[in-house]
Amino acid sequence: MNRAELISQIKQKESFLCVGLDADINKIPKHLLALEDPIFEFNKQIIDATKDLCVAYKPNTAFYEAHGVKGWESLQKTIDYIPKDIFTIADAKRGDIGNTSSMYAKAFFEALNFDSITVAPYMGEDSVAPFLEFENKWVILLALTSNKGADDFQFFKDGEQHLFEKVLEQSKKWGTPENLMYVVGATRPEMFTDIRNVVPDSFLLVPGVGAQGGSLAEVCKYGMNKDCGLLINSSRGIIYAGNDENFANEARSAALVIQKEMSEILKGL
Amino acid sequence: MNRAELISQIKQKESFLCVGLDADINKIPKHLLALEDPIFEFNKQIIDATKDLCVAYKPNTAFYEAHGVKGWESLQKTIDYIPKDIFTIADAKRGDIGNTSSMYAKAFFEALNFDSITVAPYMGEDSVAPFLEFENKWVILLALTSNKGADDFQFFKDGEQHLFEKVLEQSKKWGTPENLMYVVGATRPEMFTDIRNVVPDSFLLVPGVGAQGGSLAEVCKYGMNKDCGLLINSSRGIIYAGNDENFANEARSAALVIQKEMSEILKGL
Repeated sequence: MNRAELISQIKQKESFLCVGLDADINKIPKHLLALEDPIFEFNKQIIDATKDLCVAYKPNTAFYEAHGVKGWESLQKTIDYIPKDIFTIADAKRGDIGNTSSMYAKAFFEALNFDSITVAPYMGEDSVAPFLEFENKWVILLALTSNKGADDFQFFKDGEQHLFEKVLEQSKKWGTPENLMYVVGATRPEMFTDIRNVVPDSFLLVPGVGAQGGSLAEVCKYGMNKDCGLLINSSRGIIYAGNDENFANEARSAALVIQKEMSEILKGL
Repeated sequence: MNRAELISQIKQKESFLCVGLDADINKIPKHLLALEDPIFEFNKQIIDATKDLCVAYKPNTAFYEAHGVKGWESLQKTIDYIPKDIFTIADAKRGDIGNTSSMYAKAFFEALNFDSITVAPYMGEDSVAPFLEFENKWVILLALTSNKGADDFQFFKDGEQHLFEKVLEQSKKWGTPENLMYVVGATRPEMFTDIRNVVPDSFLLVPGVGAQGGSLAEVCKYGMNKDCGLLINSSRGIIYAGNDENFANEARSAALVIQKEMSEILKGL
């Protein structure tokens, strides 16, 4: 999917919500466990219940890999089931030397046919560039993450510049707002102004609203640009809104609350 | 496998060689392609031909993920086939927020039963700590990598300290030389002295000897400690030493050259 198509979806659905498909076998409703592939069945019902309210789905690969071959099958079925006009994000946080990153690109862009993948920047340009060679596919580079450990290295400072700002600045030489987004956590909304100074046009994938405590209004206030420029992720707050036979309806209700707030915010654009 | 067992294996085999199992379907001998699982068949023959010469095997997960479910099956069969007294490294370069890293730990330490996994440090402590909770399992944290892109961020400097030195120093609070190793590329042997000042006792996993141009003698001169403290990886230089029916013998010959040099070096310990 290209940038224009993504923006068009946002306008059409009045939403910039991304639903994180982090299906944990220990947290999904118990009645699903009797089925042959409980993880896929859970995702399928979540997708059916939310697909008109969100513009992206983001399976986190860890939750599938934890089940070995069977988990990889659930991931394949899930990505195949997602409607083609919805942006798909492999939240995989990969990144390795060039020939290896090329293999990861094949894994996620060809074998699984995701639109995008999250990539960790630590190994630098040749670990990111192979992903940028695929047409209409995206890298979503970790910049400022939403977790506590972000403080350990991302705020390391060379003169006036933090490491995460260096990542933003340096990576602008590798890609464009047409194929490169950034992960910026919602838990530090005050940083969005600085970040927008460096990458005014790029889309930002924002985790940390909901379970991790970030505020949608604050993030939008400081992080939105003229094309919206945000994908706000919610995982646990939506998919585990309920935990019985009615879970899909409750997920829909949780997604609807966010979508309505987004619709109001988009009117101000 | 614990540290004492690893050191014992090094002494017994007079080797600190790690063989990288980066089986690329486009590079393995053509006669294998007719078999049902060419990747596993290739690995099986490499393992049979080198298992008395090396102390570790390191499959890079990208090469398996590139083939989707089938690749994950080849990886499972490969890890199951490696003799239990050989240290196994999932070169996966994972790392995510705490609950997700816990899932990756389950994937690689439980579902696949690897001894260790490579982890990227960018997201900090809570992305690394969940891997350190497993008994006799190891994190191998990226510090200074062997690729060109290492220059982009790993030499970012706060006062007198480079980012990769900060990673070494900070992570010493999270683990010990009994459960934490570091990736340090062979392509910068002059940096090993500084690194040993920060982590004198830790094992270092050293890629970049061979195809990437690093020198074994130089790395050992500056990087070895009293317990050896090094695992030197070679992937392409061994597994693609030959490319016809005789490939496994040629891989053995290539491994033997390195093992003999290692045997001589270990006599000087």
